[in-house]
Amino acid sequence: MDNFTFYSPTFFVFGKDTENEAGQYVKQFGGSKVLIHYGGQSAKKSGLLDRVGASLDAAGIPYVSLGGVKPNPRSGLVYEGIDLCRKEGVDFVLAVGGGSVIDSAKAIAAGVQYDGDFWDFYSGKAHIARALPVGTVLTIAAAGSEGSPDSVITKEEGMFKRGTGSNAIRPRFSILNPALTQTLPAYQSAAGITDIMAHLYERYLTNTKEVEVTDRMIEALLLTMKHEGPRVIADPNNYDARANIMWAGMMAHNNSCGVGRSQDWNSHNIEHELSALYDCAHGAGLAVTMPAVFKYVMNHDVMRFAKVAVRVWGCQMDFDHPEVTALEGIEAFRRFLIDLGMPSNFAELGAKEEDIPKLVEVLCHGDGRTGSISGFVELSEEDCTKIYQMMV
Amino acid sequence: MDNFTFYSPTFFVFGKDTENEAGQYVKQFGGSKVLIHYGGQSAKKSGLLDRVGASLDAAGIPYVSLGGVKPNPRSGLVYEGIDLCRKEGVDFVLAVGGGSVIDSAKAIAAGVQYDGDFWDFYSGKAHIARALPVGTVLTIAAAGSEGSPDSVITKEEGMFKRGTGSNAIRPRFSILNPALTQTLPAYQSAAGITDIMAHLYERYLTNTKEVEVTDRMIEALLLTMKHEGPRVIADPNNYDARANIMWAGMMAHNNSCGVGRSQDWNSHNIEHELSALYDCAHGAGLAVTMPAVFKYVMNHDVMRFAKVAVRVWGCQMDFDHPEVTALEGIEAFRRFLIDLGMPSNFAELGAKEEDIPKLVEVLCHGDGRTGSISGFVELSEEDCTKIYQMMV
Repeated sequence: MDNFTFYSPTFFVFGKDTENEAGQYVKQFGGSKVLIHYGGQSAKKSGLLDRVGASLDAAGIPYVSLGGVKPNPRSGLVYEGIDLCRKEGVDFVLAVGGGSVIDSAKAIAAGVQYDGDFWDFYSGKAHIARALPVGTVLTIAAAGSEGSPDSVITKEEGMFKRGTGSNAIRPRFSILNPALTQTLPAYQSAAGITDIMAHLYERYLTNTKEVEVTDRMIEALLLTMKHEGPRVIADPNNYDARANIMWAGMMAHNNSCGVGRSQDWNSHNIEHELSALYDCAHGAGLAVTMPAVFKYVMNHDVMRFAKVAVRVWGCQMDFDHPEVTALEGIEAFRRFLIDLGMPSNFAELGAKEEDIPKLVEVLCHGDGRTGSISGFVELSEEDCTKIYQMMV
Repeated sequence: MDNFTFYSPTFFVFGKDTENEAGQYVKQFGGSKVLIHYGGQSAKKSGLLDRVGASLDAAGIPYVSLGGVKPNPRSGLVYEGIDLCRKEGVDFVLAVGGGSVIDSAKAIAAGVQYDGDFWDFYSGKAHIARALPVGTVLTIAAAGSEGSPDSVITKEEGMFKRGTGSNAIRPRFSILNPALTQTLPAYQSAAGITDIMAHLYERYLTNTKEVEVTDRMIEALLLTMKHEGPRVIADPNNYDARANIMWAGMMAHNNSCGVGRSQDWNSHNIEHELSALYDCAHGAGLAVTMPAVFKYVMNHDVMRFAKVAVRVWGCQMDFDHPEVTALEGIEAFRRFLIDLGMPSNFAELGAKEEDIPKLVEVLCHGDGRTGSISGFVELSEEDCTKIYQMMV
């Protein structure tokens, strides 16, 4: 196991009706003027924004609101939020939504306390040293942003989708009410499930030896998703299945199961170009990307793929031909995602074969990269081209 | 799943040579005058105290030292530590040792900032609202106190062993260097492994339904202990096995795998009377206690015991007779502990059958209890008597 540090200081409030405690926690964590940041109309229509607003009223905390965050959140709204916070003297950003809203809120919180262009944090020009405190009321189990130091934003000029991370933008508190996810369309639930499983696979694919504890924890969370995923697709109102998925989603990405080991993240990087160009759901893009990447890199460590096949997917180990078991596990995962309702190829995703050179160009040369991406395996332009072709 | 809150803000520093960073972290977390609290001679002889002291010197932080913490730490030294901190103007308590040292350090940290008798926190008369900040340099994987809000102290008058908990005494940082555990005697390593597994079983035995995510996480950590435990007994210098156990020990007890579910803790309560009376190692007491308790309460939820038997101990499910599988799992665990070198009965523990009435009296009536203990199953005096008799 490699040396590491681990820090996850977020206060988690989990369960039914907990959104009504938002005001109390904003107060506890020092907020006196709040920006409520949210996405589309669903948070309004469901009454969630009203309930959160009422809890702020009850705590005596004034607030302003900024909605309109879209999936794959854009830089434009971040600039708008920064201006609004400065104008209104906001000292606490409360994200009410999913990963996109939380990521956008984190970008605003960092940008308000920075003299330069907030994009510097995403292009690698600057590190986030301080930010307004952020809280969250989560409405979809997916990105894990509620418990992570990460944020991913798409710059509208050039459609670069890039991430950053800092302990300064970790949420001070996150409110997780699984019931809020019961109204999600099945496709969004499935995309969230896929994203959570991707966070687990990205950590599972390691070159570090002797990491039994984190291997086992990742497998535990994958097994949870395997069990609970189909249950929420079959019955969207299954609170218990939603709850198990929601906690797994946080644990999958606060990195307690990823410490002390190298990680992959090639699938995320390859997918980011798809959601940036086609504006598809990140999870849907991952469902198409992961099986292709895994098949392409499988021979780098056949035994690792055989292990997850046996321990998670219930495959029988072929001791004479471990590569058969490894491939069976990838196929089982691919079929699982299709059964959840996820796309399995470029066409279903709305992606086009003729765009592959453009995708590879941005992936391997955009924003400071020099012809390849690295992770579990280093992938050249040629490798990335072949992987995208496997997805057609 | 039940509603819950979860908060684990400790900054963990994990890996080789990390004890040399102690001074830097004390500084980062606001300490300017330190009490180094430690146990016996081993920390001195190994040079660990010197290295920690040197790192404080390098950070320009003065310190005083107080050693002598024994397993099942006593109230007398806590009073001494409180007096010393007040006299010397200490504002940070640094525990260098295992769970006993850390628990004693937490008691001192809380006592310094309290006008009354610190024992009020342990007898349930008062809650710890504030405390000096605590940091730890861990030397044995066992208690999980490095990442928990808990502390257990034995009051010398009456030998009451009682616990308390508060976020105010959670360590600000904990330094975990697995190499520091390589010099432990095998018996202590085994007792630590048993304690970690007990923390997992106490959470596994729940009456809450539909808790797949935490069930799976607990099983993952038990599987880790099953794999790594025998490896460190066979080769004390196996750094990787030590490292996997050390992270599992923290994860087993910071409660990320115990949230949203009722827990047991009857085995701990039954054992506490043994280590209080006979001063045996807590883990050794648990090794004798758990199999007896589990057999006694097994029929309360046979399927839960069958599940851990199949998923962790590799038993074949007997679908016609699940109680057979359940019992097989308990037996597999009992044999595992014996193979580690743990005792399996009263005699090996140094306990005496004739003391059972006294043990039961203190257990069920001591310090405010009213004739029973409760957890997975409520246990009367008669139940507890039978369980102690099973251990003879």
